[in-house]
Amino acid sequence: MNTTPALPIKAIAFDAYGTIFDVHSIAKLADRHFPGRGAELAALWRVKQIDYTRLRSMSGRYEPFSKITSDALVHSARALGLALGDDHAVALMRQYDHLGVFDDAARALHVLRNLHVPLAILSNGDPPMLEAIVSNNRLDGVFASLLSVDSVGIFKTAPEAYALGPKAFGCAAAEILFVSSNCWDACGAAWYGYTTFWINRAGLPIEELGVVPAGTGRTMDEVLAFVEPRLIAPAA
Amino acid sequence: MNTTPALPIKAIAFDAYGTIFDVHSIAKLADRHFPGRGAELAALWRVKQIDYTRLRSMSGRYEPFSKITSDALVHSARALGLALGDDHAVALMRQYDHLGVFDDAARALHVLRNLHVPLAILSNGDPPMLEAIVSNNRLDGVFASLLSVDSVGIFKTAPEAYALGPKAFGCAAAEILFVSSNCWDACGAAWYGYTTFWINRAGLPIEELGVVPAGTGRTMDEVLAFVEPRLIAPAA
Repeated sequence: MNTTPALPIKAIAFDAYGTIFDVHSIAKLADRHFPGRGAELAALWRVKQIDYTRLRSMSGRYEPFSKITSDALVHSARALGLALGDDHAVALMRQYDHLGVFDDAARALHVLRNLHVPLAILSNGDPPMLEAIVSNNRLDGVFASLLSVDSVGIFKTAPEAYALGPKAFGCAAAEILFVSSNCWDACGAAWYGYTTFWINRAGLPIEELGVVPAGTGRTMDEVLAFVEPRLIAPAA
Repeated sequence: MNTTPALPIKAIAFDAYGTIFDVHSIAKLADRHFPGRGAELAALWRVKQIDYTRLRSMSGRYEPFSKITSDALVHSARALGLALGDDHAVALMRQYDHLGVFDDAARALHVLRNLHVPLAILSNGDPPMLEAIVSNNRLDGVFASLLSVDSVGIFKTAPEAYALGPKAFGCAAAEILFVSSNCWDACGAAWYGYTTFWINRAGLPIEELGVVPAGTGRTMDEVLAFVEPRLIAPAA
């Protein structure tokens, strides 16, 4: 009987925002500034942020994620007719450095560290953003690398961005598990050649991109269940 | 006194969907299939359609716009919990070939043809889609070229897509007026080097991309007002 042997996983690269770090507090803070409109502002802000990464990538007009995120906030507030003062903007942008870690992500990172699996973050965030959020969550030393697309000047899903993982770990993309809560990100990484896991926190249908993540689950607990049997290379 | 002379415009390239052709009937048809949910489905469908053009472009995974549009419809219906039968899908996709022309666009095309300005469509749509919609609206002969990104295998805002205009017209991008109802499209074309006009049909704020269209207005009438004084090269 033919069964596909589990691929050995030598390292894990995580998306940051929404995957390890809970962005929910942004909508809460936005709602304190704009009562009753916070969820709407946070949702449009996120859409515009991602739009701008893609437009700038396609047009070769890279700017760091912090700049793009700030631009997206300005546009979103204007589109919703919200008067965004400098104090609001600064507070909302600062919140990006103070997002908390999902409980399931904290548990999984603890387990994986004890298993001595090399871990990295591979994010659109620029280095100051990634360093701040990791430090503010006392995760220093957890990740072997904080891989920012800033070093290649183009955002995910560009191949140059995903190439950072194999380069940092010194192994093939297929030997790295790439974990993201964004289905498009898991699909982009799968196109690139990673073994991928989509944490479908929001219970969404899969993107219709003609590619499927190797694993899917609702939390990081299911990442652990997926990765543990794959950590040892199967017998030949 | 220094004044910037108006650039001479030698040709005009138009975006298709939402710019010349009115996509509103898609939401109406969707609402016949899914009463009370049509606007929501049409809006998400559009978002996903554009998302997929960008993801596939960034990852080098081009598929024709008709395929992407169909994929986006499947995902959107699923995300909204709508049971999309084959008959619904076929009818909604067919509607793309039967969109009407905005009244202001019809007037402007008539005037511009009488002025003997070379006109083109420069669209993400694939050639069969563009040929069908032009033919169904009896616009055969109006456009010197139907420029589809399909010939370069990457969607707007990639430079390869915008390069089709200067190549077809045999003049510099700055001598071509690129007209779109999508601000991101006008911005992408401006980055490329076109003289650009954003028809802001929906009254949205400008995208915060660090670039500004040369002209902005609510309808194609304002495109005419913008272009007519620029059709003759200014005295040296």
